[in-house]
Amino acid sequence: MAKKPWAGRFVEETSRSVEKYTESVSFDCRLWRYDIEGSVAHARMLAKQGIIAKKEAGLIVRGLKEIQGEIETGRFVFLDELEDVHMNIESSLIKKIGDAGRKLHTARSRNDQVALDIRLFLRHETGETIKLLLDLEKVIAGTAERNLGAIMPGYTHTQRAQPVLLSHHLMAYAQMFDRDRQRLSDSLKRINVLPLGACAMAGTSLPVDRAYVAELLGFDSVSENSIDTVSDRDAVMEFLSCAAIMMSHISRLAEELVLWSSGEFAFIEISDAYTTGSSIMPQKKNPDVAELMRGKTGRVYGNLVSILTVMKGLPLSYNRDMQEDKEPLFDTVDTIQATLKILAEMFGAVKFLKDNMAKSAGAGYSTATDVAEYLARRGVPFRKAHEITGGIVRYAIDNGKTLKELTMKEYVSHSPFIKDDIYQWIDEKRSVSAKDSLGGTAPARVKEQIRAFRKRLGK
Amino acid sequence: MAKKPWAGRFVEETSRSVEKYTESVSFDCRLWRYDIEGSVAHARMLAKQGIIAKKEAGLIVRGLKEIQGEIETGRFVFLDELEDVHMNIESSLIKKIGDAGRKLHTARSRNDQVALDIRLFLRHETGETIKLLLDLEKVIAGTAERNLGAIMPGYTHTQRAQPVLLSHHLMAYAQMFDRDRQRLSDSLKRINVLPLGACAMAGTSLPVDRAYVAELLGFDSVSENSIDTVSDRDAVMEFLSCAAIMMSHISRLAEELVLWSSGEFAFIEISDAYTTGSSIMPQKKNPDVAELMRGKTGRVYGNLVSILTVMKGLPLSYNRDMQEDKEPLFDTVDTIQATLKILAEMFGAVKFLKDNMAKSAGAGYSTATDVAEYLARRGVPFRKAHEITGGIVRYAIDNGKTLKELTMKEYVSHSPFIKDDIYQWIDEKRSVSAKDSLGGTAPARVKEQIRAFRKRLGK
Amino acid sequence: MAKKPWAGRFVEETSRSVEKYTESVSFDCRLWRYDIEGSVAHARMLAKQGIIAKKEAGLIVRGLKEIQGEIETGRFVFLDELEDVHMNIESSLIKKIGDAGRKLHTARSRNDQVALDIRLFLRHETGETIKLLLDLEKVIAGTAERNLGAIMPGYTHTQRAQPVLLSHHLMAYAQMFDRDRQRLSDSLKRINVLPLGACAMAGTSLPVDRAYVAELLGFDSVSENSIDTVSDRDAVMEFLSCAAIMMSHISRLAEELVLWSSGEFAFIEISDAYTTGSSIMPQKKNPDVAELMRGKTGRVYGNLVSILTVMKGLPLSYNRDMQEDKEPLFDTVDTIQATLKILAEMFGAVKFLKDNMAKSAGAGYSTATDVAEYLARRGVPFRKAHEITGGIVRYAIDNGKTLKELTMKEYVSHSPFIKDDIYQWIDEKRSVSAKDSLGGTAPARVKEQIRAFRKRLGK
Amino acid sequence: MAKKPWAGRFVEETSRSVEKYTESVSFDCRLWRYDIEGSVAHARMLAKQGIIAKKEAGLIVRGLKEIQGEIETGRFVFLDELEDVHMNIESSLIKKIGDAGRKLHTARSRNDQVALDIRLFLRHETGETIKLLLDLEKVIAGTAERNLGAIMPGYTHTQRAQPVLLSHHLMAYAQMFDRDRQRLSDSLKRINVLPLGACAMAGTSLPVDRAYVAELLGFDSVSENSIDTVSDRDAVMEFLSCAAIMMSHISRLAEELVLWSSGEFAFIEISDAYTTGSSIMPQKKNPDVAELMRGKTGRVYGNLVSILTVMKGLPLSYNRDMQEDKEPLFDTVDTIQATLKILAEMFGAVKFLKDNMAKSAGAGYSTATDVAEYLARRGVPFRKAHEITGGIVRYAIDNGKTLKELTMKEYVSHSPFIKDDIYQWIDEKRSVSAKDSLGGTAPARVKEQIRAFRKRLGK
Repeated sequence: MAKKPWAGRFVEETSRSVEKYTESVSFDCRLWRYDIEGSVAHARMLAKQGIIAKKEAGLIVRGLKEIQGEIETGRFVFLDELEDVHMNIESSLIKKIGDAGRKLHTARSRNDQVALDIRLFLRHETGETIKLLLDLEKVIAGTAERNLGAIMPGYTHTQRAQPVLLSHHLMAYAQMFDRDRQRLSDSLKRINVLPLGACAMAGTSLPVDRAYVAELLGFDSVSENSIDTVSDRDAVMEFLSCAAIMMSHISRLAEELVLWSSGEFAFIEISDAYTTGSSIMPQKKNPDVAELMRGKTGRVYGNLVSILTVMKGLPLSYNRDMQEDKEPLFDTVDTIQATLKILAEMFGAVKFLKDNMAKSAGAGYSTATDVAEYLARRGVPFRKAHEITGGIVRYAIDNGKTLKELTMKEYVSHSPFIKDDIYQWIDEKRSVSAKDSLGGTAPARVKEQIRAFRKRLGK
Repeated sequence: MAKKPWAGRFVEETSRSVEKYTESVSFDCRLWRYDIEGSVAHARMLAKQGIIAKKEAGLIVRGLKEIQGEIETGRFVFLDELEDVHMNIESSLIKKIGDAGRKLHTARSRNDQVALDIRLFLRHETGETIKLLLDLEKVIAGTAERNLGAIMPGYTHTQRAQPVLLSHHLMAYAQMFDRDRQRLSDSLKRINVLPLGACAMAGTSLPVDRAYVAELLGFDSVSENSIDTVSDRDAVMEFLSCAAIMMSHISRLAEELVLWSSGEFAFIEISDAYTTGSSIMPQKKNPDVAELMRGKTGRVYGNLVSILTVMKGLPLSYNRDMQEDKEPLFDTVDTIQATLKILAEMFGAVKFLKDNMAKSAGAGYSTATDVAEYLARRGVPFRKAHEITGGIVRYAIDNGKTLKELTMKEYVSHSPFIKDDIYQWIDEKRSVSAKDSLGGTAPARVKEQIRAFRKRLGK
Repeated sequence: MAKKPWAGRFVEETSRSVEKYTESVSFDCRLWRYDIEGSVAHARMLAKQGIIAKKEAGLIVRGLKEIQGEIETGRFVFLDELEDVHMNIESSLIKKIGDAGRKLHTARSRNDQVALDIRLFLRHETGETIKLLLDLEKVIAGTAERNLGAIMPGYTHTQRAQPVLLSHHLMAYAQMFDRDRQRLSDSLKRINVLPLGACAMAGTSLPVDRAYVAELLGFDSVSENSIDTVSDRDAVMEFLSCAAIMMSHISRLAEELVLWSSGEFAFIEISDAYTTGSSIMPQKKNPDVAELMRGKTGRVYGNLVSILTVMKGLPLSYNRDMQEDKEPLFDTVDTIQATLKILAEMFGAVKFLKDNMAKSAGAGYSTATDVAEYLARRGVPFRKAHEITGGIVRYAIDNGKTLKELTMKEYVSHSPFIKDDIYQWIDEKRSVSAKDSLGGTAPARVKEQIRAFRKRLGK
Repeated sequence: MAKKPWAGRFVEETSRSVEKYTESVSFDCRLWRYDIEGSVAHARMLAKQGIIAKKEAGLIVRGLKEIQGEIETGRFVFLDELEDVHMNIESSLIKKIGDAGRKLHTARSRNDQVALDIRLFLRHETGETIKLLLDLEKVIAGTAERNLGAIMPGYTHTQRAQPVLLSHHLMAYAQMFDRDRQRLSDSLKRINVLPLGACAMAGTSLPVDRAYVAELLGFDSVSENSIDTVSDRDAVMEFLSCAAIMMSHISRLAEELVLWSSGEFAFIEISDAYTTGSSIMPQKKNPDVAELMRGKTGRVYGNLVSILTVMKGLPLSYNRDMQEDKEPLFDTVDTIQATLKILAEMFGAVKFLKDNMAKSAGAGYSTATDVAEYLARRGVPFRKAHEITGGIVRYAIDNGKTLKELTMKEYVSHSPFIKDDIYQWIDEKRSVSAKDSLGGTAPARVKEQIRAFRKRLGK
């Protein structure tokens, strides 16, 4: 069994079941690249400050690069008994270069080291997620642009409400994802703060240069309080919050893709490549990918609850409970990145059945609001206009007619303000075009929206 | 690439990223034993009912046993492209035995098959968890029995309240774990219902005998509604609820182990085998195992939230979202079982520093309630007795005295009802012995409690 | 300002903002009836045991009844400064009857008193919820019975899968609610345990008779460990878990009611009494009640997370954090009871548009599985039968035909095993009737299911 | 019964139980001020655009001001039957001014109206919360400044780790709250976007001027997509995420206040005004306020889970489920604001028992790291230095000595590098002063930290 690097004052050995229970290397090995990157910078700083010799730093850096090569080519073996990624790498280094390796941990602790690795990881993955969001936003905007003109029913309460442009509906999601992107961007300034140098929790008596390490690693600033630095998992909580909000958006889009794929809606057909079949029902073509996206919302919500629960009521500073931050974080990163990627791909594989959409948009008295606005324009107070139109709809239902099928006489019997231009107003296309208030569904407005959106995306 | 068993009506192939996104075999392969067990029973029933030939059933069973052998010896390769454990095993079977293998899936669907596998798994793991709880309960009761007599401060609001027996305090946890056990036992009757035969969701036109399958697999009953059967994940939600409540108990015990290990409390010393050291501070001996147990509460709470979120708002019957039930379930099973096991082990590794406990129990005016009860016994209305005693405590604090250090004169100045037997009443040992109401902390009562508890545990 | 009953040792007064922050009477006043019931039983026991005089007990009981009258008629004023329901009632009692009132709190503490009130409340409300579930189950079974014969599409993945009976689909929900009911029933034995007599946390030196109190209050047993008794909120966590699982069921039913009300499904019409209109769109009739039910799932899930979070990591025994148990509990009780009540009412107000359902059931190749089972019966291995049928469906889609429109020649070209009785097999009615496996959707089976279900409900 | 404003097409009346179930006025009445503010701006815009007459707008504004006066003086009666705050105010307006009132709802819907009210509310309450955080941060920085010099044990794993300044420990919380403040500030730009004008979901055909409304109401920008505008509750989810993270910080501080108040730690005494007593134990003085703060974490976490659950899987655009956003939001605002306020107050009421802290800081070999760093400075590789020091601690424990009590001979027997300046290094005061790395606990560094922090707070 490998000797624990902290075993000095210990008499008994760790029980094997405890080793399995407490080890983190099976998941935090994922941080190896950041661990090495951080150690290289730390060694350089130690040498620059004269805490270790230049030659020793050279040995350390070379040793770490060698380990990096071994990991990249799958030749490095991570051991449970060495607990975590940090101890595994350091132990290997010591084996390679001896005493110089034993000096690497001068003026640092695993407490600030793991904080560093997480921040480097989060900075990178937040950046990646932002890129994926950008890609998805572009795909949606492109799809919206290509499909300008297609009319579908806009819904409230899953009831047809008013005809809208499909492109307008799609752009609603682009707007949501853009807020997700902004939220993540804002979080970056709180992530990009150097923790290394906080040591165990109190700082160090050795003459370190934290600003230099920050510079080497591309951090904007240096953490101001060593106790806070090792106690804090804010960046993880904030990332998981952003991810949870994003998944709420994805779950809504996924729900719509599922509904629209149903035989009853029949608004879209998702290509075979993004659906799967049934083991018993040969005719089935299931929107599994969209369903799984909706389902994965549970996973991300759960991960957020996990980390919030972990942090509840913990006294300062570092506590071992906080080791439980990594799996929910990693799982969330993997989940949202895979989901964003496939969502962007899948958009191209959706065939919009525009005739079905248009037919549905025309049904259900969806231009009744236009009748009410027609009356309001003619000076009827809106509440009265609304009531009159309600009566017209009631009458039409009772008589099995659509709004278009009502005669002028029937209209006038409900209100003398109605003239025969009403038939233009209740046409779905006209209805859509008329909604040209800022942010409205009129084609001109939606075009404008897409243009502005694209500009914001930097393209 | 392996051909999908449902590919009949499909034209395009599944995209590789989708395959990775939708596959479940990387985690549901864990269910292989139950999948085979279920398939064997299903094949036997099909043969008994004449749906397939006896010889075919024989081939199937032999093929499945062969696969079982391969899996047990690590020779079976699970493939992502075959999606899940069911398809992997079936495909292998077909390769082995040809057309007979193609008949196994008659009169069943993956929808009822996965429901079966989960129930078999849950039945087994619920039983295992119950056993582990029982073991832990016995360990606690044993520890309580061995330490009868040791006095510690009982706390409310983390303030010393009244002296109690350490054994009484420990038995409080035994009671909690016993309720956890009962809750799981109650859930078994809802778990142990055969789902197989619901098929895709409507049942089957083939003359199956579900009661026979139930008998073969040891189920108490057969599900009554095929739609419910494939839609439902109640058993998972109930198990995760039970696990969450149990983890709340474990988190409290862990919190106390951490506090008691602190230099300020110094009530216990946990053996080296269950603690770890620091990479920078050589003197540290950290109660990491207890901290991790407390931290793992977050994981289990999060898993419960995951499955609840997944099930929210899903229309009937099966939806692919429900594939997301397995990872939270498996993770919870692993977490609670490892935690229960190590907790039971660790109990034996805790050294109680009884002198420190006793000293603390005597501090802080912890027998003030006994003074109030003394007065109440002498006819002073309790509210007045409480107020008088409050005054005595106030006076003692202001004069830097303990209750024992107050003179008779000082006592009498607060109430003429106080006689010199008061000094017996404020002795901690006497105080503890006096609390001999049912369920109270008097040694006789605690002994009785342990005896009754053990009897309930069947030992 | 009212004097705090515990103010004996205190010098400074509570700040007013703290009083507002810490008071619970604004919500726990709801427990008044149980608080009085418990106090009456406690007083009787004290007298029986000679701890107080019979006459004093008489005064106490009369005083409490008077207070009960005042509360019932709205004449009792609960004061924030008196913190909670217990202190408000006790203070009023003391004002009324003087020293006898000051004796009521002998041999008890607010810690066991509040535990008692919660258990009495939970016992009652669990019983009420069980009744409401029973009512709802009967309504569903009744609706299923009345609509036997109506065919609808059964869905998996929100895709039409196989034709089923509407009654079968409805009964799936009855099964879920029945499990909810069983789960709550099981919890009752853990609720119905007397906590009173645990006092602050250690029991009492006074000669109380807890079994007698249990008898008076209808408890099955007496708690065995005084520390556990005041530390524990298991009953609240278990109730909220049951409620969360139940709400997951309700959210699914609500989702379906919303979908079925949509213009695209048009499977039901909910009566005006259970829908609402739009402030701007005169034609709208929104399934608001169902939507709110779905939305209220969030509230109940959140309440469960609240209490789990509160209990995480609390050392024994009572901590003030636990005061936060009541609002989530009360809110959950109100939410689920109102929801169950209205859901049962609303069922009668749903008009099933059976023609639309039937039409939809016939679309989408929903009897393809019957073709596969047809082939399997003729000895084609199921996997091959599935593949052949997949090819038939593919062919039919490409040629714009339904299964019924395919000619015998077309069928035979896919498999020589197909004879002209195939046309009977692909009829939806026949398909439904054929699924007569136990728990299947055949009318005979569903009738049987409803009969058995009703029997279980005791009616 | 009041007539529903949307009742035009309805035949049956809403059932009373449904009215109770669906009404929101009992809680959204809290938004009245924002509702009126929004309506005034809307009316002005309608008049400016000629959609209604100037005179009508004048009547509307006057009517609304009158209603405002009635509400402020408690003379306005909100009615359940009128569903929500919007309908209550509009109905009253119509009663007051007739047809002009009926025109107010022209070119808007309750969907965009409620979105507006929430944003105005959130903007205000986010601002208030930021102010409260600022106050608290100042109080902490002030307390830290006043107590510069006091030494306490710094902890990891609730084990004494290294001596630190009390002020440094306190400033860790100031840093956390400052991040909370930044996070809320970042959210403001996503909150401060005008939703009004999205109408039901599609925009309007009337010639509205949304930019003008934005200007009147102080919004930075106008929402770009009408569907997104009424579908979105991002601002609520983001606020609740920020609140949850903040409560995790508060729960940690509260935990420490509770621990430090315990007899075992005895690091602080909280003034009587912020503690409460026991109904049975006269000596108790409980840190109830801190406990409740810790407990209220559950409430806020639960509220976040509620809204996330509500939004999961909702199709666009508005759904009635979203009415469930308000109670968790309001409850969270009230909880965090009261908590922040009282926390700032309570800080002044905490008496630090510095002697106890100092004594504890000196115990437990807390300067062992200094010995290791001493050796590292003398060229011993850190890992070896750590091991040697571990051996020294082990030796000291076995011989019942502190580090200060070890003789030079004993030291040298562990390492020849140790000279007699070691005794300076293991002094707690010196140890603290030596940690003068950036962000370290040396007094000079902490002073610097406080100064920089104050500057950032703008004071």
